[in-house]
Amino acid sequence: MKLLKVDTLEAALDKLEAAMRTGGAGEPETELVSVLQALDRIAAEDVLCSEDIPSFDRSTMDGYAVVARDTQGAGETMPTFLDLAGEVEMGKEPEFGLKSGQCAYAPTGGMLPQGADAVAMVEYCQPFGTDKVAVYSPLSPGHNMVHAGDDVRCGECLFQRGRRIRPSDMGLLCAAGKTEIKVYKPWKIYIISTGDEIVPPEAMPLPGQVRDVNSAGLLGEALSQGFDVAGLDVIWDSQDILTEKVRSAMKKCDVVVISGGSSQGKKDATEAVIDSLTSSGAFTHGLAVKPGKPTIIGFDEPTECVVIGLPGHPVAALLLFRLIVAGIWKRLTGSAETEKEIAVDAVMASNIAASPGRKTFQLVTLDYEHIGLETGLPQAVPVLGKSGLIRTMSAADGYIVMDVNDEGLCRGERVRVHLLMR
Amino acid sequence: MKLLKVDTLEAALDKLEAAMRTGGAGEPETELVSVLQALDRIAAEDVLCSEDIPSFDRSTMDGYAVVARDTQGAGETMPTFLDLAGEVEMGKEPEFGLKSGQCAYAPTGGMLPQGADAVAMVEYCQPFGTDKVAVYSPLSPGHNMVHAGDDVRCGECLFQRGRRIRPSDMGLLCAAGKTEIKVYKPWKIYIISTGDEIVPPEAMPLPGQVRDVNSAGLLGEALSQGFDVAGLDVIWDSQDILTEKVRSAMKKCDVVVISGGSSQGKKDATEAVIDSLTSSGAFTHGLAVKPGKPTIIGFDEPTECVVIGLPGHPVAALLLFRLIVAGIWKRLTGSAETEKEIAVDAVMASNIAASPGRKTFQLVTLDYEHIGLETGLPQAVPVLGKSGLIRTMSAADGYIVMDVNDEGLCRGERVRVHLLMR
Repeated sequence: MKLLKVDTLEAALDKLEAAMRTGGAGEPETELVSVLQALDRIAAEDVLCSEDIPSFDRSTMDGYAVVARDTQGAGETMPTFLDLAGEVEMGKEPEFGLKSGQCAYAPTGGMLPQGADAVAMVEYCQPFGTDKVAVYSPLSPGHNMVHAGDDVRCGECLFQRGRRIRPSDMGLLCAAGKTEIKVYKPWKIYIISTGDEIVPPEAMPLPGQVRDVNSAGLLGEALSQGFDVAGLDVIWDSQDILTEKVRSAMKKCDVVVISGGSSQGKKDATEAVIDSLTSSGAFTHGLAVKPGKPTIIGFDEPTECVVIGLPGHPVAALLLFRLIVAGIWKRLTGSAETEKEIAVDAVMASNIAASPGRKTFQLVTLDYEHIGLETGLPQAVPVLGKSGLIRTMSAADGYIVMDVNDEGLCRGERVRVHLLMR
Repeated sequence: MKLLKVDTLEAALDKLEAAMRTGGAGEPETELVSVLQALDRIAAEDVLCSEDIPSFDRSTMDGYAVVARDTQGAGETMPTFLDLAGEVEMGKEPEFGLKSGQCAYAPTGGMLPQGADAVAMVEYCQPFGTDKVAVYSPLSPGHNMVHAGDDVRCGECLFQRGRRIRPSDMGLLCAAGKTEIKVYKPWKIYIISTGDEIVPPEAMPLPGQVRDVNSAGLLGEALSQGFDVAGLDVIWDSQDILTEKVRSAMKKCDVVVISGGSSQGKKDATEAVIDSLTSSGAFTHGLAVKPGKPTIIGFDEPTECVVIGLPGHPVAALLLFRLIVAGIWKRLTGSAETEKEIAVDAVMASNIAASPGRKTFQLVTLDYEHIGLETGLPQAVPVLGKSGLIRTMSAADGYIVMDVNDEGLCRGERVRVHLLMR
């Protein structure tokens, strides 16, 4: 029996990152895209603001721009009377300034005249005739207005390289006058499923056959990470065919993933193919993770292509795709540093054993109907199921991680749940 | 001064839902799409499995299929010797069955022969010659194998109407032989920004002018919710132009959102346009939420179009788009019932006041560097900023909600943070 030489997940990512950086594939290529098309793309540089936002002092209410100290002592029974100096038009610079004792009508968003430092809401004001306004409320400077630069100051960083662009970021970029943004080009991924037992999803499997699950699942994972999928192939277990498919895919893609080959014989074929087609050879021959042990990784310098042999079990294949392909992408694009990993705290609903010597990923659902009385936290309910089942992952809300040295978790123990859904 | 007749958020959604259901726009249209294109789409019906997955008993290990009771008492020093009856080929039905005393080689994923009810891993077996195998480990029935139907049983529901399709769901659908799925057609959204002060993002604003933030922000929100955006328009504040734009957009879209018009005069124009162009008239003239009070809603039966006047302030516009447009979409597609709303528990990092009589949405960041000693939870740090600023939303990780009757939250108080990022 051939023993696998296994890496930890971190060691495997370190090796892969080093191989890619040395091989000239460290930072993904970049492109300029319109802000309107930037949703979920990854910023390829820090974005600095080159002006104050807003560029002028602005009213945040419909009301009267005033000199705040003029309103000291004003109240419901004792208004301050001010001279109406004019009216601010939306989108225009007022052609007058305010002196002490004066006010001017300013709509929400209007530019304040020189000298004004607060806005009295119309609700607290009463015009008298055409040239006087009574203000019934005292105001401190800055009230009901924003100053130039209050949103963003010139020179400030809007967000850092590695940022996944959100809707509000698109608005922020527009506010700063940026209509394009430099983002990373998504990697092109080629997905190959292997197995003599595999038939296409539209076929009715004969006894002994199963439908191809991994092509669609990996396609979904790749798309949800923002990658392009250049092709899908289902092939029988033949080292020759696999070699040809991988060789051809490597020419046009950044990452080739081969799923299947969990059994010893098949794994050897995948490993031999990766070994022979990559300049690095297969440098990871197995991972100390559960599920996902039979994972093989190599990198080819001439084609700048990563080739990964994923386990055949669907849950393991999908999880490892996230951990390896999305994991290395995040490292190389800077997202790993800038992105906050948001996880939900929960308590274990039952005991669960870890797999000795391996980092164990356990699928769980979150039970919000049995919130812990003392902790106030939802329960993490393990989704149990033997390897090879796909429904466990579909049914799970997320996963918990038990480290290499953990023996397991006890009922009631506190855990962090990494979310699987959007 | 005209007082707003305000609805609670729930009342507004109830009114809108009732108007849409009565007006024949209750459930969105559906379409069949390939499973390969179903990522993030919303299932329009319960999906039932019409067969057992897997359809046969399967090995989950490379090993020897056995009759489990034959191995009772087997151990490292005392193997059970079995007759090798054959070898299972991947993807094929074994042409032999197992009787007591027999075994057969079965690779991972291979179909078990009739009579086998467990698999001994190769690591615990030793072939002797060509026809005998020593098994060094006792096995209970079901060990290292999955039974037909273990993943999903015939007739079981794979997932319910309203499910947002995930990568693993795509795999699950393929496993069940479903190559297409009935999903809801995304709504077509038309986005109109109004304001005399607004210039396009590529322009350098003159004093008093600001760049259009809401078009890009709302486009992003719409796309991230899966909607189609049929058009974007920036227009000056003119009731005539607005009327024409909205009327024309209503003919080709499901939802028209108008942002801007936060100030009293502008709001009146938006309200008048919605009132005149919808068969229902504007039935919500303001919302008891902060931010987002100046929100106007109407529904037109003939065109089956929802018309919404959103606040001009970007944060309010983006938040209200989520709450109203995505909110009603989730109600009508069933996602509101089937989707688990995952939120992160945290403790307030500082006191924060609610807005009396209004449901208050407070943007926060999650601080994982100052985890509470007793609670073990991250801190929710309010992102403060006056209305009209966009950066607050871009900087936030999520928001907390204070109810109409809440006075506010104290430092250390426990809160649920609804996430803004993916």
